[in-house]
Amino acid sequence: MPLITLLTDFGTADGYVGEMKGVIYAMLPQAQIVDIAHDVAPRDVDGARLAIARYWRRFPLGTIHLVVVDPGVGTSRAALAVKSDGRFLVGPDNGVLSPALLRSDVRVVELPTPPQASATFHGRDVFAPAAARLAGGSPLEALGRTYDAPVLRRTPEAKRLADGTVSGEVITVDRFGNLITNLVAPRGGSVVLGERVVPIVRSYGDGTSGDVVAVIGSSGLLEIAVRDGSAGGTLGAARGTPVLLRPAPPNA
Amino acid sequence: MPLITLLTDFGTADGYVGEMKGVIYAMLPQAQIVDIAHDVAPRDVDGARLAIARYWRRFPLGTIHLVVVDPGVGTSRAALAVKSDGRFLVGPDNGVLSPALLRSDVRVVELPTPPQASATFHGRDVFAPAAARLAGGSPLEALGRTYDAPVLRRTPEAKRLADGTVSGEVITVDRFGNLITNLVAPRGGSVVLGERVVPIVRSYGDGTSGDVVAVIGSSGLLEIAVRDGSAGGTLGAARGTPVLLRPAPPNA
Amino acid sequence: MPLITLLTDFGTADGYVGEMKGVIYAMLPQAQIVDIAHDVAPRDVDGARLAIARYWRRFPLGTIHLVVVDPGVGTSRAALAVKSDGRFLVGPDNGVLSPALLRSDVRVVELPTPPQASATFHGRDVFAPAAARLAGGSPLEALGRTYDAPVLRRTPEAKRLADGTVSGEVITVDRFGNLITNLVAPRGGSVVLGERVVPIVRSYGDGTSGDVVAVIGSSGLLEIAVRDGSAGGTLGAARGTPVLLRPAPPNA
Repeated sequence: MPLITLLTDFGTADGYVGEMKGVIYAMLPQAQIVDIAHDVAPRDVDGARLAIARYWRRFPLGTIHLVVVDPGVGTSRAALAVKSDGRFLVGPDNGVLSPALLRSDVRVVELPTPPQASATFHGRDVFAPAAARLAGGSPLEALGRTYDAPVLRRTPEAKRLADGTVSGEVITVDRFGNLITNLVAPRGGSVVLGERVVPIVRSYGDGTSGDVVAVIGSSGLLEIAVRDGSAGGTLGAARGTPVLLRPAPPNA
Repeated sequence: MPLITLLTDFGTADGYVGEMKGVIYAMLPQAQIVDIAHDVAPRDVDGARLAIARYWRRFPLGTIHLVVVDPGVGTSRAALAVKSDGRFLVGPDNGVLSPALLRSDVRVVELPTPPQASATFHGRDVFAPAAARLAGGSPLEALGRTYDAPVLRRTPEAKRLADGTVSGEVITVDRFGNLITNLVAPRGGSVVLGERVVPIVRSYGDGTSGDVVAVIGSSGLLEIAVRDGSAGGTLGAARGTPVLLRPAPPNA
Repeated sequence: MPLITLLTDFGTADGYVGEMKGVIYAMLPQAQIVDIAHDVAPRDVDGARLAIARYWRRFPLGTIHLVVVDPGVGTSRAALAVKSDGRFLVGPDNGVLSPALLRSDVRVVELPTPPQASATFHGRDVFAPAAARLAGGSPLEALGRTYDAPVLRRTPEAKRLADGTVSGEVITVDRFGNLITNLVAPRGGSVVLGERVVPIVRSYGDGTSGDVVAVIGSSGLLEIAVRDGSAGGTLGAARGTPVLLRPAPPNA
């Protein structure tokens, strides 16, 4: 039985996630559901997209990733099921599934909305049933018609300027307050955030308490951290804050 | 093996939920535990009751719903196991199980408190063992003596006034700040919150950012939402805030 | 298949826990993963240690407890796998595993760091793979070399003063704001917090709303609680706040 993973921005206290799980188990009593997260910030499609990028291909082939961060529920946005790199994804057509959609081997179908579906809870009435059907062995194409132009959202790319400086930005701030940037694993040079030059070290625990440091994070992206603290809080930085990578001087 | 679902107000960081899970797995290594929520507001019996109303009948027949929102632990309040509509529920006698207790086919027993039970943690020492026994196949009546008059809590009902206005209230505010009311699926008319007349639309994504709208929620109750925002925060509304439904004028 | 429990301070929204789960399922598709908590306060090694003390021995023999609260990731701190009292634990050598390390029958090995491991995410690259190998049947000694002197952290002990007073302190504050102390189940006397003498009662629900009470908690330690409220908030107490237990007067 393939795994069904579950990512939402619903929190859990209201019982919405409970309803979705109940729908899946009622359709497929042997289902194996894996909670990824329900504490995505409300309506944070980009935050969810970045999380999915981290985990979706770590799971075994055949896994179904159910994703409901869906501020457009009940509007004309499509509901999708996707097969990509041997895994399935189910969720709204708002770009949240982009990490899987941007691969070359992707297939996408549009899920029909049953007439009795609530206009406010497709997680329960459209997406969870589709995930259960896939886990039960339905082929992707049995779930809906081919869908050609899904919405794609991309992480903004850093730009190389004429003087060799790479101009990037903070793309997300994690629970520790670490600033994850779009600067890919630099081999040297200096990191600049506002007026501050930040040394590149090996790990968060280097330096002394309160030091501002840059590290190469676990996805290969440069992060700015404060030892024993929160870089987001201390430096007043947030998604979109510019971060520069200045080349090392020639004879350094 | 039937599922055991778990709803508490314990959070998870303190390890209380871990203890409960350990007790269940130690008694029944093949148990299938499903987390519903642990982020119910501390002691929020009514919030938990509304969540249970959403999910308890979505799960397969035979499921055991373990519920520990129990501010009266260690006092004279009874500990209950319930069978209703083919599912089991285990939890304190404080009204939190009312969605199942209010059905006609309900059976209720009182769980004895073992002498060695902690007076502060019946979740671990009374309720989790009862859930494990039910999951292992014990009949309800093997767990305790029939209990006749469980505490019932009901959602306040909206009232129809002489002029046709329906006078309701906010019964809970969800994670998105949506105000869930006790007004059942109106077919028209206008929704009034304080000085504000709120249009009824189809889904949260209708209108433009910041608009205050009313929608028919996924349980059939009227909700008031702010597009891309929190109605609870923006409108200063909370559980108990009055909401009126005014009839449409005759020729409208 | 033994259970793998998972305790981290990662939150879940960023996808780090999702990555760890994916790594485990990819190595061992039949794995049974049990979430304990991901909402441990960032870098709170002592809070995690106290939670582990609660749950680790409640689980069946053979369970693998995976613990990643690891502010020193990527520094020279060792990565450990432990066998103690029939269970396994995997986590950093920062004292968080002390409840298992302080037993007499403990065996400890140091996990090697693979060259391709990220310096910032040993949860994914070192600890999760070790847990999966143990769950798959690898003996402890196959995972690394014996490690002799793991870091131990202990809860501070209460001290008996010349006049018979026992001088203790708050060791943690739980989600309800209850102050958990290091005073072991007193048989009488009076509890003193600051200027306040606190009566010892049986359970949180004794007294009237707002009362400050002391109870014997579910681990046998004295707790100070506010009925229907938060003792931490109301009394301005936190980890380390002194709490005294004064002996009952001779003829009382």
